[in-house]
Amino acid sequence: MNFASDNSYGAWPEIVAAVGAAATGAVPSYGDDTLTAKVRARLAELFERELTVFPVISGTAANALALATLVPPHGAIFCHGESHIAVDECGAPEFFTHGAKLVPLEGKDGKLVPETLERALAHFQKGFVHHVQPACLSVTQSTELGTVYTRGEIAALAALAHAHAMLVHMDGARFANALAHLGCTPAEATWRAGVDAMSFGATKNGALGAEAVIFFDPAEARDFEYRRKKAGHLLSKMRFVSAQLDAYLTGTRWLESAARANGLARKLAAGLSSVRGAEIAHPVEANAVFVTLPDTTVARLRRLGASFYDWAPPEDGRTLVRLVASFATPEEDVTRFVEIANSE
Amino acid sequence: MNFASDNSYGAWPEIVAAVGAAATGAVPSYGDDTLTAKVRARLAELFERELTVFPVISGTAANALALATLVPPHGAIFCHGESHIAVDECGAPEFFTHGAKLVPLEGKDGKLVPETLERALAHFQKGFVHHVQPACLSVTQSTELGTVYTRGEIAALAALAHAHAMLVHMDGARFANALAHLGCTPAEATWRAGVDAMSFGATKNGALGAEAVIFFDPAEARDFEYRRKKAGHLLSKMRFVSAQLDAYLTGTRWLESAARANGLARKLAAGLSSVRGAEIAHPVEANAVFVTLPDTTVARLRRLGASFYDWAPPEDGRTLVRLVASFATPEEDVTRFVEIANSE
Amino acid sequence: MNFASDNSYGAWPEIVAAVGAAATGAVPSYGDDTLTAKVRARLAELFERELTVFPVISGTAANALALATLVPPHGAIFCHGESHIAVDECGAPEFFTHGAKLVPLEGKDGKLVPETLERALAHFQKGFVHHVQPACLSVTQSTELGTVYTRGEIAALAALAHAHAMLVHMDGARFANALAHLGCTPAEATWRAGVDAMSFGATKNGALGAEAVIFFDPAEARDFEYRRKKAGHLLSKMRFVSAQLDAYLTGTRWLESAARANGLARKLAAGLSSVRGAEIAHPVEANAVFVTLPDTTVARLRRLGASFYDWAPPEDGRTLVRLVASFATPEEDVTRFVEIANSE
Amino acid sequence: MNFASDNSYGAWPEIVAAVGAAATGAVPSYGDDTLTAKVRARLAELFERELTVFPVISGTAANALALATLVPPHGAIFCHGESHIAVDECGAPEFFTHGAKLVPLEGKDGKLVPETLERALAHFQKGFVHHVQPACLSVTQSTELGTVYTRGEIAALAALAHAHAMLVHMDGARFANALAHLGCTPAEATWRAGVDAMSFGATKNGALGAEAVIFFDPAEARDFEYRRKKAGHLLSKMRFVSAQLDAYLTGTRWLESAARANGLARKLAAGLSSVRGAEIAHPVEANAVFVTLPDTTVARLRRLGASFYDWAPPEDGRTLVRLVASFATPEEDVTRFVEIANSE
Repeated sequence: MNFASDNSYGAWPEIVAAVGAAATGAVPSYGDDTLTAKVRARLAELFERELTVFPVISGTAANALALATLVPPHGAIFCHGESHIAVDECGAPEFFTHGAKLVPLEGKDGKLVPETLERALAHFQKGFVHHVQPACLSVTQSTELGTVYTRGEIAALAALAHAHAMLVHMDGARFANALAHLGCTPAEATWRAGVDAMSFGATKNGALGAEAVIFFDPAEARDFEYRRKKAGHLLSKMRFVSAQLDAYLTGTRWLESAARANGLARKLAAGLSSVRGAEIAHPVEANAVFVTLPDTTVARLRRLGASFYDWAPPEDGRTLVRLVASFATPEEDVTRFVEIANSE
Repeated sequence: MNFASDNSYGAWPEIVAAVGAAATGAVPSYGDDTLTAKVRARLAELFERELTVFPVISGTAANALALATLVPPHGAIFCHGESHIAVDECGAPEFFTHGAKLVPLEGKDGKLVPETLERALAHFQKGFVHHVQPACLSVTQSTELGTVYTRGEIAALAALAHAHAMLVHMDGARFANALAHLGCTPAEATWRAGVDAMSFGATKNGALGAEAVIFFDPAEARDFEYRRKKAGHLLSKMRFVSAQLDAYLTGTRWLESAARANGLARKLAAGLSSVRGAEIAHPVEANAVFVTLPDTTVARLRRLGASFYDWAPPEDGRTLVRLVASFATPEEDVTRFVEIANSE
Repeated sequence: MNFASDNSYGAWPEIVAAVGAAATGAVPSYGDDTLTAKVRARLAELFERELTVFPVISGTAANALALATLVPPHGAIFCHGESHIAVDECGAPEFFTHGAKLVPLEGKDGKLVPETLERALAHFQKGFVHHVQPACLSVTQSTELGTVYTRGEIAALAALAHAHAMLVHMDGARFANALAHLGCTPAEATWRAGVDAMSFGATKNGALGAEAVIFFDPAEARDFEYRRKKAGHLLSKMRFVSAQLDAYLTGTRWLESAARANGLARKLAAGLSSVRGAEIAHPVEANAVFVTLPDTTVARLRRLGASFYDWAPPEDGRTLVRLVASFATPEEDVTRFVEIANSE
Repeated sequence: MNFASDNSYGAWPEIVAAVGAAATGAVPSYGDDTLTAKVRARLAELFERELTVFPVISGTAANALALATLVPPHGAIFCHGESHIAVDECGAPEFFTHGAKLVPLEGKDGKLVPETLERALAHFQKGFVHHVQPACLSVTQSTELGTVYTRGEIAALAALAHAHAMLVHMDGARFANALAHLGCTPAEATWRAGVDAMSFGATKNGALGAEAVIFFDPAEARDFEYRRKKAGHLLSKMRFVSAQLDAYLTGTRWLESAARANGLARKLAAGLSSVRGAEIAHPVEANAVFVTLPDTTVARLRRLGASFYDWAPPEDGRTLVRLVASFATPEEDVTRFVEIANSE
């Protein structure tokens, strides 16, 4: 019963097979291979526009390299205070941007709203050399708290960002989960709503280790290629990352896998809502459930083999925990988890 | 007939199979898995000592992260002027070390000698705040020019470096090729000769993308873990890099693969030595051949499908080219290449 | 009527004279001169202990260099959300530390309290590689809002920081103003209360451009000298910075100048408290007054020649403004400002 | 008898007086004062064109900030192997550029020639992501070895650099000495010969600590202002740096001071040429003399109070030493030095 993270689970057999199929023969190194070209074309098709794509192998690399390309060292990046870039990347964005500043903002259910951004922007005087200059808004979709921005919410934030000459980055480590929830096209969920660049994740949804940085306006990609190389993220055998993305994006399995994980999360939430003293902390829209459970329940679950993270210290006999479902989480694990939680 | 690079070739079936075998089930993320622990134990066994191991996915990352851990921002790194860190990493060491300085040295056949290092050190005044301070010597084994340092050569360089309070890093992207040539133990080739830390390569010898940074004195690893994370090189599904290294290090195939590639290089060199106007530029001790060929020969080879790099601009009707053999280069490609070169 | 900043005013005649006196003859460069040695000895005497001193020429340099010496690239620096390092240095600390993270905290009247720090620390898991690691607490004395920490307040914060293995930095750009208010010794206000390193300011209190970075434990200064050089802050004619500090620290004028500025601020506050609709926003303990004034009053003051900064956008017909008094602000300017403000 | 460096000497009385004159009253901070504007206008007049000027307080800061503005992190900076930026700035250019690479080139008498640059450029493949990309040529005028590039030499180098889409930076820490030798206008010596940006030094020629970074095409200044602030080099009381530059540039004293120093160097060289076993190592065109002297002579000079630097270790009973004359070196010191050297 592993609900610790979606990255605790392995990979799709199709992705493993694709890597194996790519393992023979000699091809040009460093991304000048046909598989990488195919991934580029496939993403252009999926997103219904010309775009620039760079495969990388981790979400932190995708985010930090994208932000460093979009933001000067004297820039400010506005983000949610609980976002991955703010909290879980050990300062990678600061390192890659050569010292830009992340400005953490508050927001209910892990989501930013234009009012908060506007209030924050008032503290940064344009052209005032003492202040870092607003350069980028980064939103996470789906969010770190298991919620999903609506297209309108993204559009409103992006419009405000653009009005202040900022670019919009989307951390889409769990973009598939968001899309499965939204039910719209990739284009509608991103550039049509104002997103300029994104980290398109596949690892958490079944790849071995594969993400794609996408710039919807190729001009914005500027010196990304050099930054990726300089950071040790340009792989000689790039074909093996591209093979993963190629298999990932073939057909609709990427969305079905995400939908499955979302469904398990909803099932978990539904099952836990009947636990006495339990309280679902945020709307369950993607593949994570944040739920406050009695400490006795938490202890019983762990004793019987469940693994998951506390999201806050215990308080008044209850603890907020995070449960993440993945493309490969066995459905019976969900059933059993709910049963244990409800037993007394 | 691809002799462009050993990284043009794919991966061992055993390595692909190991990745597939690791793809099911849920395990702890970020390297807290049993496969990563197994790799650590296996390397300790191979090197016959306690050591600290960090898997990463590219040679540039391995080198740059290792150097940044060993060298302060005000440090100097001495290396061969044609070394990968000096020439082919787009300044990654400078970026990761926050501005340390690489001091490129000359040396016959891609190898440094103590006299050159000593002469260079005379230009750096200890404790003089205007000068970067000698901090590290980095040697490449096998070298970028297809030669291999003897154990004695490494030991002499390391002794001089240590006498100046510098640490010794080995870029072992092709360590297996060097070891296959030397015929000594991994320990004898490294820490027993004075090497403090190394980039242990597997990618060029048959992995999908897997290298290990090794610190022979665990105390020297200091903040490596944070640096790796901050650089986006700590993978959530680390097991898939470790699975590669585990398969790579099982038995002796890693040395046999390298020996095979070395043998093909020797065969190439032998076959090309009979070409009129050809000249082998450096001793062929690992898996690369540097040979000056008549431009007509070069053109004919390319026309008939051979791919390889020019290593210098054409001069007097001849060009210095580099030919690299790999674990998977078909032997008949070597035969055919030699035939074409010798036909007139 | 310039109340924009204490750095709008020039310099003491004594300091100009000292620079002139130092301008003849040849002396060793880069701080190996007798004036620099004298400043070091004088500060050791003033602070009643062995310490390490490095003169620099700006407060931002002092703060950023000190923090970079105390904090690793993967470290977190806790500070007030309105502190100079967080808001007014264009990300200098992030640049100099190679990407460490500033964690902005809230606190009444510009002052932090242990409870807030403790709550923040709960979000950073020790040894958890994804989180930047708590490394430093930086407090400003006097604060950006014109208040002064008591010795007990500093001691309580420092004790908590030390209990979490963090070091304590004090931004003392206006240390003289704080000391003039506290009435205690420099030692009591700093290292005896737990401060490990400080930026000791002189510029705002009458120097041309001179600050000193002080490490109370010389071992903590580690590679500061190299960092200062690498940042272009090691001056060849260091004697001219040291001459300023020497004159500044001769006798007690530095404290009297600060006391004078503090007194003018109190006089301003007292005089403005009778303005209808005026409200003093924070206790006036150093040389700055934060006061909410009717917009008509603000406009009248500016029309008649007063200069000062708005500290927030106008709200309900009133604006919060900042007024700073300096060592050289004419007392009649204060009198006239108060008169204009009170006239209707 | 101090010939250690021109920065061992103090400052012009006129410069001290100008600082004193600027010390009263309140003016806008951070360079928005009239003195700074006046310096800008004066330099535009001197250089006969529109330009952008930023005062800073050290040559290392001027060079590193200028280079960081001109060069991306993945760029290469070509320079003489004995240049200040390569040898004497502790890696400041690498730090400020976020890891760009300095490529040290050889060149007789401290001067580069186009052939050497061209040969070096051949090693950098345009658009090849593994190689840092040629971005800037930096020349020192006068050079570190006391020679001066002719206008034609600069023009030829600049033409080659521009042909490779590189910008040209001049380290003019001793620009006045070069100009005094060349006898041409500042414009002819710089932008008319192809220089794009320069560090215009005043410190070594009589300022307390004042340099100006000049961009001849204001568009190239790009984000310099933010870089300067972020590096702690934007001074609040900027007027005191500008006051120095203003006094320095008033009239022709800056050129006369340099001419005087150059003359003393020539006198030194002439007087030393009669010493048995002495050999002048480089043409004496600016204010430094590099001369090989018998070790007995060196010892006698030092015993009798002369200070100067060895430029290389002793060899065969002789040592290469550097003697620098300054605006304030007493002429009798030169006379006496020569006498001692010639006495036996």
